[in-house]
Amino acid sequence: MSIFEITTKDSGSSARCGLLETAGGTVTTPVFMPVGTRGSVKGLLPETIKQTGSQIVLANTYHLLIRPGVDAVEKLGGLHKLMAWDGPILTDSGGYQVFSLSTLNRVGDDGVEFASHVDGSKIYMDAKIATEVQNRLGADIIMCFDECAPYPCEAADLRKAVDRTIRWAGQCKEAHGNDKQLLFGIVQGGVDLELRKECAEKLIEMDFDGYAIGGLSVGEGHENMITVADFTAPLLPENKPRYLMGVGMPADIIAAVRAGVDMFDCVLPTRNGRNGFAFTDNGPLKMRNSKNSEDRRAVDEKCDCYCCKNFSRGAIRHFFNVGEMLGPILISIHNITFYQKLMHTIREKIENNTFSEWAAEMIAGDKYNTVK
Amino acid sequence: MSIFEITTKDSGSSARCGLLETAGGTVTTPVFMPVGTRGSVKGLLPETIKQTGSQIVLANTYHLLIRPGVDAVEKLGGLHKLMAWDGPILTDSGGYQVFSLSTLNRVGDDGVEFASHVDGSKIYMDAKIATEVQNRLGADIIMCFDECAPYPCEAADLRKAVDRTIRWAGQCKEAHGNDKQLLFGIVQGGVDLELRKECAEKLIEMDFDGYAIGGLSVGEGHENMITVADFTAPLLPENKPRYLMGVGMPADIIAAVRAGVDMFDCVLPTRNGRNGFAFTDNGPLKMRNSKNSEDRRAVDEKCDCYCCKNFSRGAIRHFFNVGEMLGPILISIHNITFYQKLMHTIREKIENNTFSEWAAEMIAGDKYNTVK
Repeated sequence: MSIFEITTKDSGSSARCGLLETAGGTVTTPVFMPVGTRGSVKGLLPETIKQTGSQIVLANTYHLLIRPGVDAVEKLGGLHKLMAWDGPILTDSGGYQVFSLSTLNRVGDDGVEFASHVDGSKIYMDAKIATEVQNRLGADIIMCFDECAPYPCEAADLRKAVDRTIRWAGQCKEAHGNDKQLLFGIVQGGVDLELRKECAEKLIEMDFDGYAIGGLSVGEGHENMITVADFTAPLLPENKPRYLMGVGMPADIIAAVRAGVDMFDCVLPTRNGRNGFAFTDNGPLKMRNSKNSEDRRAVDEKCDCYCCKNFSRGAIRHFFNVGEMLGPILISIHNITFYQKLMHTIREKIENNTFSEWAAEMIAGDKYNTVK
Repeated sequence: MSIFEITTKDSGSSARCGLLETAGGTVTTPVFMPVGTRGSVKGLLPETIKQTGSQIVLANTYHLLIRPGVDAVEKLGGLHKLMAWDGPILTDSGGYQVFSLSTLNRVGDDGVEFASHVDGSKIYMDAKIATEVQNRLGADIIMCFDECAPYPCEAADLRKAVDRTIRWAGQCKEAHGNDKQLLFGIVQGGVDLELRKECAEKLIEMDFDGYAIGGLSVGEGHENMITVADFTAPLLPENKPRYLMGVGMPADIIAAVRAGVDMFDCVLPTRNGRNGFAFTDNGPLKMRNSKNSEDRRAVDEKCDCYCCKNFSRGAIRHFFNVGEMLGPILISIHNITFYQKLMHTIREKIENNTFSEWAAEMIAGDKYNTVK
């Protein structure tokens, strides 16, 4: 039985709506996953995350491995219990963070030895360990351990990263020991389309439950990112979910959906929320700006999120100005809701077969390019 | 028509249950008010505050006067709008903070000139201004501008503070220009019972809507505090609400209710919550303690608050350990709920006429003396 069912296809593009079945529940795609790095979507109660329209959340294996540790998570009843989130969860493999956050001691074809960014303690990670750790954390979707190359990257290094990513993917599949969890492969290859193709083909031979496009949003820019997504998505099996990791701005998401991508995660709504940067249909709003001080309007007068239904711009500006947690909390709620409403609109447009025209307009226009 | 109706009297003590009518709604007493100093009960959405069983919240005039300023609050639609709190609100007068937080430039019999603790700007405050500011902030209950003497205090200084408090109370009553707001007088006098009596009598002559006992919880200790509350409460009109400001620990509240006090506020549940200190019926729990790391139990297994229904001690310990906002938020929810359940129990015991025996046991025992 298939875990992914395409319910509608857009006639003017590769966009599609689907249902993704996981042990933790069914997700309607295209879907956006808020990021709960250390087991918490920063500042939000699980019931509040639900209120934003979120269906599935992401947590980071690397961070959870370091603190509180996989033993603790397991003893506390698994990741769903830790987070008090009864919907689906996806964990990344830790690969991205090992290469971006930690001090690398030794990178070999078999695995990586690194020093924790918290206390410098030495940790060894390979495909088998990354998979076992995720098996034990207990998310509904887990990811293969991969090497995410930086941008720009020497050709030889990129080649090596892709080779390792492919080899490790096979080891992950072999090690995967929790049949309640879906395992996704990750296509690497930077902005080298030939490498992307080779990596995709090798992974498809291994037959994963879904496929991710990794290694983007690392500085390559919007154009490169879209070129890679446009090229890579159609290489992936039509009947499997496709996930563009760490992307991104609303216009990026629309462009990737058009290319046939189904799943997204990004820290932007929460990170920007904490910094007082609100997404709105009329462009960005910087909440700390003193021009908001006496403004009685909601952040977005057409928005029905908890923040916009209850608080004025002036009140929120005050909370940011005096350092009250409520400011970051409210704008995180608003921004995640903004993203979930965007995904709702995307699904609606696909279902009404009006997606392609709308997408072209949105990608070209200012409305969803709030931070150009 | 009376704004305060006593619904039940305890036969074994001065404790009573009542209904306090305010423009923002009716409050059942004895009542505990969580503190929202700068317009936010730290870390909690208004809907979450409601879920804790809170009926009325407190905000601090001094802090709001400095930021965002009374003009801004007024332009944003008043304090209820700023806080998005549709229930009753009480503002203190700022007196306590002027004397404890700011740098005093000049204290005279007419008023006080002080430097803001935020930017050092000079502010002049007197009874008329404090009342007008509170009239404009728009809380449902406002307080007279008073001088809160430190502890210990020279007899001459205490005398002077009481004289000023009485004089200023008259000026506040005269200045009070918002008939939707109840105005409470504040009895000062430190631990000098004669001064307390004199102050109470003078204020009663002025006929306020309610009376507060101020100047306690400033270092005089539990015994002194209870002695003053026991002495002062019965001096106040039976048919008016009595409010013990800034108190306190659960056992203090029980003792003061026994003396006939109806209203309380205190930062303990939220401040301790942020510090990872949870109130429970079995004594305090320090959430940061590593012994909680793998503990699957709720903070209080008998508690039905959002925190205890959803999160393990181990998860909360992790959130504190890694610095996630969720830790302080969850324990603040739990602690406020703990206080509100205590008030509920107090009201129930008074209504069942079993309060005095229970109170004696609780005050003597460990259960509600969690931080002795």
